[in-house]
Amino acid sequence: MNVVNDMLREVHSQFVADTSGGVADYIPELAAVDPDAFGIVVATADGYVYEVGDTGTEFTIQSVSKPFTYALALADNGEDAVGAKIDVEPSGEPFNEISLDPVTERPRNPMINAGAITSVSLVHGRSHQDKFDRIRDTYSRYAGRELTMNEQVYRSEARTGHRNRAIGHMLRSFDIVDTDPDDVVDLYFRQCSIDVTCRDLGVMAATMANNGVNPITRSRAAAPALVERVLSVMTTCGMYDGAGDWVARVGLPAKSGVGGSILAVLPGQLGIAVYSPRLDQHGNSVRGVLACRELSRRLELHFLHVGRAARSAVRADYTLHDAPSRRRRSTSEQDTLEERASRVRILELHGDMLFSAAESVVRAVGTSGTDLDAVVLDMRRVDEVSGVARTMLDDMMKGLRSDGCATALVDPNSSLGHTTSSISGSDGERVFTTVNAASQWAEELVLDRWCTGPRQPTRVTLDTHPVLEAIAEKHRAVIREAFELRHFGRGDMIAAPGDHALGLALILEGRVVIAAPDPAGRTVPVSTLGPGMSFGEMPMMQRSQFLVEVRAEAPVTIALMTMARFDSLTEADPAAKLDLLETLLESAYMQAESIIRSLRRPV
Amino acid sequence: MNVVNDMLREVHSQFVADTSGGVADYIPELAAVDPDAFGIVVATADGYVYEVGDTGTEFTIQSVSKPFTYALALADNGEDAVGAKIDVEPSGEPFNEISLDPVTERPRNPMINAGAITSVSLVHGRSHQDKFDRIRDTYSRYAGRELTMNEQVYRSEARTGHRNRAIGHMLRSFDIVDTDPDDVVDLYFRQCSIDVTCRDLGVMAATMANNGVNPITRSRAAAPALVERVLSVMTTCGMYDGAGDWVARVGLPAKSGVGGSILAVLPGQLGIAVYSPRLDQHGNSVRGVLACRELSRRLELHFLHVGRAARSAVRADYTLHDAPSRRRRSTSEQDTLEERASRVRILELHGDMLFSAAESVVRAVGTSGTDLDAVVLDMRRVDEVSGVARTMLDDMMKGLRSDGCATALVDPNSSLGHTTSSISGSDGERVFTTVNAASQWAEELVLDRWCTGPRQPTRVTLDTHPVLEAIAEKHRAVIREAFELRHFGRGDMIAAPGDHALGLALILEGRVVIAAPDPAGRTVPVSTLGPGMSFGEMPMMQRSQFLVEVRAEAPVTIALMTMARFDSLTEADPAAKLDLLETLLESAYMQAESIIRSLRRPV
Repeated sequence: MNVVNDMLREVHSQFVADTSGGVADYIPELAAVDPDAFGIVVATADGYVYEVGDTGTEFTIQSVSKPFTYALALADNGEDAVGAKIDVEPSGEPFNEISLDPVTERPRNPMINAGAITSVSLVHGRSHQDKFDRIRDTYSRYAGRELTMNEQVYRSEARTGHRNRAIGHMLRSFDIVDTDPDDVVDLYFRQCSIDVTCRDLGVMAATMANNGVNPITRSRAAAPALVERVLSVMTTCGMYDGAGDWVARVGLPAKSGVGGSILAVLPGQLGIAVYSPRLDQHGNSVRGVLACRELSRRLELHFLHVGRAARSAVRADYTLHDAPSRRRRSTSEQDTLEERASRVRILELHGDMLFSAAESVVRAVGTSGTDLDAVVLDMRRVDEVSGVARTMLDDMMKGLRSDGCATALVDPNSSLGHTTSSISGSDGERVFTTVNAASQWAEELVLDRWCTGPRQPTRVTLDTHPVLEAIAEKHRAVIREAFELRHFGRGDMIAAPGDHALGLALILEGRVVIAAPDPAGRTVPVSTLGPGMSFGEMPMMQRSQFLVEVRAEAPVTIALMTMARFDSLTEADPAAKLDLLETLLESAYMQAESIIRSLRRPV
Repeated sequence: MNVVNDMLREVHSQFVADTSGGVADYIPELAAVDPDAFGIVVATADGYVYEVGDTGTEFTIQSVSKPFTYALALADNGEDAVGAKIDVEPSGEPFNEISLDPVTERPRNPMINAGAITSVSLVHGRSHQDKFDRIRDTYSRYAGRELTMNEQVYRSEARTGHRNRAIGHMLRSFDIVDTDPDDVVDLYFRQCSIDVTCRDLGVMAATMANNGVNPITRSRAAAPALVERVLSVMTTCGMYDGAGDWVARVGLPAKSGVGGSILAVLPGQLGIAVYSPRLDQHGNSVRGVLACRELSRRLELHFLHVGRAARSAVRADYTLHDAPSRRRRSTSEQDTLEERASRVRILELHGDMLFSAAESVVRAVGTSGTDLDAVVLDMRRVDEVSGVARTMLDDMMKGLRSDGCATALVDPNSSLGHTTSSISGSDGERVFTTVNAASQWAEELVLDRWCTGPRQPTRVTLDTHPVLEAIAEKHRAVIREAFELRHFGRGDMIAAPGDHALGLALILEGRVVIAAPDPAGRTVPVSTLGPGMSFGEMPMMQRSQFLVEVRAEAPVTIALMTMARFDSLTEADPAAKLDLLETLLESAYMQAESIIRSLRRPV
């Protein structure tokens, strides 16, 4: 049971009874197909194939080959060289017209026979066979399986294809084709005779939707820029007639073939293939056109369809007030931050950063740089960043820095291409993995600039540590006695996930980084603790293991009350221990409150 | 300083020196314009206007009027009636050709003069003046200001427009126009003579990009489906020639006019207008075409451009193991949940839900319903949901329920159109505002189905409350003495944000809801607490106020140790109080750990 299959089945049964039109019969092999065959495939840009009806029946690819060989010619020769031989304008004439554009003296586009034969002539190769092998290999890469040529159809086409030979010689006479036109037309007959199934065409379309990479085999069939160009030409010239009606009613780049197939592409999302051999007067599959229209309508696939009004790429825009770091601060530091925290703006971005999204960020920041100490862009919810968006954000940040406003990114995935740096780069840009780390950095920046009172000391003694200071005078000696000093070097692991409780650790000097393993197995920094702060309470009180790692960021001195000393205190001096626990409990709730506060951040 | 302005300025100066081409001179008023005028506007779909150069100079709209009157004709008559009069195929002929399509005997499209004059004839109105007023009002709504007609240009056009009169009479003779052709052509001269600025055209284009709503005035100028159709026709027929080249090199629906302007639209994102009167041999503005190409290339605006490969709409896919509710459980309940938690799948979705996104959700869920007790879709990070996506997700959820798998949404914004329901709807779909509420519901469901052992009691006594049970036998009487019972009715506020600390509250019976105010002023439920749980510790230990509200979900009985009793215990029995604090501290850290665990959820 899958609702997508259900929808395909409904579209299939909606049109299966339509037997209007007739199969192509200019060669007996085409006339011999089952006229009632009807298959529909929707293949997603990540490689999942939905199919209903006759999706495994083989038929010759015919004109649906044209965009693929055109892409190969573009890859072999470049856009300019191919553009000098083939125009890209809709012709308004039959696809097999033996004429060129009277002004440019070129085939009007690569989707009519004259243009397609010219594409073939531009395919590189050491020999006739080599050229055909390259064409067949390319198609096979789009389809994700080895495709083969139908000998009967080829021989029949070659025997009767005088009109295409005429086109070949006409192209030779105008020097559009500059090799033996019979060889070129022979290659064209061969490429049109390659057998495919509806499923194959669906995957080929999905490969185009996936920027030229086959989503199943992960093999690249064409460069993204070429795919974009080929899809553009399919938009205006892909259907035998009625490009305007097709764009208005279907709105997908497409190509049809007299074999009875239509291939359509929604870039970035999916490919569609329909096979039904009966053709209308233009040469397009009758049920193919109907099915494409209905799929576009029901699934809302029109490429100009907009689901919603524009939204801002800025998901939240707040200041340091709403995201204080958890670092301990002196009173004058706290006062300064209270007064100046709005001088640091943190913008949380989300979605794909294309031009419009980057524009809304640039506009939101505006000219606020001159009134700010720092701007932080939180990129964690950003998906893709386009080239122009990267340039725009980089330029905006550069502009801020030249106005004296520091800048930082929270960008653990390097979506802007800058790697995490704990120290400032030559241009002053900082990159952090967490908002808390960026907040700490921004707070230091604000304090360095504005705080004139006493700063939080870079070291405390056991007696001036806030935990000891909170203990009543009469209990302090007993508590102090229970601690012993420990030293750790830069980078030393103080506690690892799974370690048993250490006891209560008070930081006297240096900094420790608390980090937690994430599901991908990486270790993600959670916070930084410094002099006057503590750790280890949680496993100590729960008699459990460490969930996080604690590592010395710089040489660290801690005062440790071991588990044994903590336990023995209950007997030795219950009143002193009560005092200690009240202190710890208050600080535990303060931490919990700071978490609640950060969860309440505006969204 | 704004990088978008910088980019526009660069494009402007890149082409400002190009003086090739000549201004239209078929009437003296057009020949009299400043040939060097050059303005570029980019207007976003949310109404911000970037402009550089001569963006305030007035000129007549000329053929750029055609799509707007076509949209009005569609609105007045419907697509079928208009389609019976005007085709939508590129013509390949000059825009002012006095001929119809030889097969359909209709104007080939609404962007050539014959089609545009037919559009005018289809505009409703009680009188000639009323029809023109409707046209002018409509254009004004797109532009967001009252536009006026240039009398000189109108008179000059009317005096010399024999070719358009010829087209009018030809249309009348074929019964395409069925009123006085001179009146119709007069209206056409008037609409072409409406004065606009480059800025006006930019806003008109942005209105189309914004699905027909002027983003500045918020006034609707056209229905979304009509805008989509008009943009489709502009894609294939909007430029005087070279639709194929335009789609390949610019890739934006556009319309040019002999006044020297080009308007282009990127649906959902932005509108572009360029004004530069010198025209190329096709009648398109020379610098207009160059600027549009360059803007499309630099800003990556091509409508077939795909920034990235497809990504899944499923941001996280986890089970109840990773998102346990914070509700207290009996041992047998805990065992059951440990064993069965993987029978509840929670899928966190993100981004816009169009067909492809919904398809990836449907595929991820697959046929897992038969092995599951419940599926929860977390919709909080979803932006827009299209009609087809809503149907697909609804159908998928219905299918799951018919397989015996319960379903729920976390969807506070009703993005799927279902409102929050604390009780089950007739079809069994549940809608919650938080994942925690959905987790609680799913746990009860799993327990009802699988738990055979004793369930968590719906009430506890003070003696069987875990806080009392954790107290050593010898201290229990003292602690018990310090509590008094309090009762609250359903909906009663037990504590409001800002209230002073109450003391320590142990829940004996009933449930309380903890809720926090969010920045928008709404109160958002955070968790539900039941018998055996406690609250009030945080303000009690910090001597602070409540940050959250605590409300009785049903009649509630709590045992309360007031602040006074808590304080007096220090003197009365320090050992007993020490015991109590150890219990509270352990539970505080357990809560903190559960928050850390929930933050570590796979993303």
